[in-house]
Amino acid sequence: PDVSETLVRVNYSETDQMGVVYHARYLVWLDIARTEHLRLAGMSYRELEEAGLRLAVSEVAVRYRRPARYDDRVRIRCWVRDLASRRIDFGYAVEHAEEGRLLATAFTSLMALDRSMNLTRMPDAVRRAMRAIPDPVSLHG
Amino acid sequence: PDVSETLVRVNYSETDQMGVVYHARYLVWLDIARTEHLRLAGMSYRELEEAGLRLAVSEVAVRYRRPARYDDRVRIRCWVRDLASRRIDFGYAVEHAEEGRLLATAFTSLMALDRSMNLTRMPDAVRRAMRAIPDPVSLHG
Amino acid sequence: PDVSETLVRVNYSETDQMGVVYHARYLVWLDIARTEHLRLAGMSYRELEEAGLRLAVSEVAVRYRRPARYDDRVRIRCWVRDLASRRIDFGYAVEHAEEGRLLATAFTSLMALDRSMNLTRMPDAVRRAMRAIPDPVSLHG
Amino acid sequence: PDVSETLVRVNYSETDQMGVVYHARYLVWLDIARTEHLRLAGMSYRELEEAGLRLAVSEVAVRYRRPARYDDRVRIRCWVRDLASRRIDFGYAVEHAEEGRLLATAFTSLMALDRSMNLTRMPDAVRRAMRAIPDPVSLHG
Repeated sequence: PDVSETLVRVNYSETDQMGVVYHARYLVWLDIARTEHLRLAGMSYRELEEAGLRLAVSEVAVRYRRPARYDDRVRIRCWVRDLASRRIDFGYAVEHAEEGRLLATAFTSLMALDRSMNLTRMPDAVRRAMRAIPDPVSLHG
Repeated sequence: PDVSETLVRVNYSETDQMGVVYHARYLVWLDIARTEHLRLAGMSYRELEEAGLRLAVSEVAVRYRRPARYDDRVRIRCWVRDLASRRIDFGYAVEHAEEGRLLATAFTSLMALDRSMNLTRMPDAVRRAMRAIPDPVSLHG
Repeated sequence: PDVSETLVRVNYSETDQMGVVYHARYLVWLDIARTEHLRLAGMSYRELEEAGLRLAVSEVAVRYRRPARYDDRVRIRCWVRDLASRRIDFGYAVEHAEEGRLLATAFTSLMALDRSMNLTRMPDAVRRAMRAIPDPVSLHG
Repeated sequence: PDVSETLVRVNYSETDQMGVVYHARYLVWLDIARTEHLRLAGMSYRELEEAGLRLAVSEVAVRYRRPARYDDRVRIRCWVRDLASRRIDFGYAVEHAEEGRLLATAFTSLMALDRSMNLTRMPDAVRRAMRAIPDPVSLHG
């Protein structure tokens, strides 16, 4: 699918003393979501890495709209926003799984690196398997 | 000072199997840096929170330029970019402490919330103690 | 069931530069597992906490036998080892989900605290729902 | 010194919604403390690892006595409890830095592994630099 959906359940370790999920944890959820997005497209990031590719995060941006709380089930929708020869950009919408409300939107840019951590071309298999789409309309306005 | 400097040492728990610091850890360093920035300006975030104020992260953006590695000493320079009635924006430059090279630049926006997690005015003490400045020239070009 | 089973998938954030899961992450998996164990016994730790109970970890012990690796699916088996008036002890076996090999064994002791963080009696509902059993034989020898 | 002392300051990311430091974070503090202990003994774990040695945690045990809280300064005292040909055991006392009260005691056992993650002999340099001592008396009774 163009937009994948991944579920996580908030664990106690992810909360802070404000009683909500600590903001840095969202980056881990984004990582889980894009790994599942790749898997749904028929690719395993583990196998890509064993074959010598590294996708290193070069940019991240998150807008936090409403807090996630302990034991909440959270859905991360993920899609490819742009796919260049050496870079892949993902977009994300983080939502409360039961109530559907939007918790955060996010963007990450990843660079393709070889084993020596130098920029390299994204493998053709990745480029064929992924399709860039515009951001879902539901995130606007 | 307008620009504070905070040092951290990279611990093993912060590395990932790419052999570099996992990208989400930078958000914790930013948190440590702005806490120290407040402390240098004469304020304790702990005391602000005990007095009922919460500064909740509403937006974060990071550009990763070079990796940080295990046992590196890292310097986080931090400054106030903007100060509004209910919001404070921080800018950051993350650098290798010994070699001086820039590892990342970052931006966070925090909203002032009261005990009920509703938007509130930033206390006058905070507004008096902090001064917004433009981004250091060294980050451009 | 006397022994619950919870699955987690290893995320990149959990690895370290040794190429295996960083040892502290196992404690989070144990936390996830005992939360699910309570849920299977008909209780929600979230609701217990909202009703004023806190189960605070007072002791933890882990023996690491084989490493878990990125993208592995891991099964945490969990059971109650002892249930006292103010304390509950859990035992755990952490296994590779597909290959079945034992990765770690663990033990945690939790104290029942009230809202003021003072020791309190475990609620009757908890004591009725949980049953202490001996460690599974498969962990010995 | 036979007993090293390392200071950490509790960051917001380390707290949980119980308003105290999440228990798994202590394992990271122990890691920081033993790295500094090695450094004080004239060794860098980074250099040991670059030379092919890995010290992998094979066992950990922590007793939590009093909670650590946000912005607390915490002192970790660390010493070698036992040193065998392929194993090194550390003991720890975690204390509130200003008030001196004991927050936790801990024990970790680490195995010496080579690059292939097989058990290996601890290098002579490590064995010469470290000295095993009994647990400090102040932890008893």
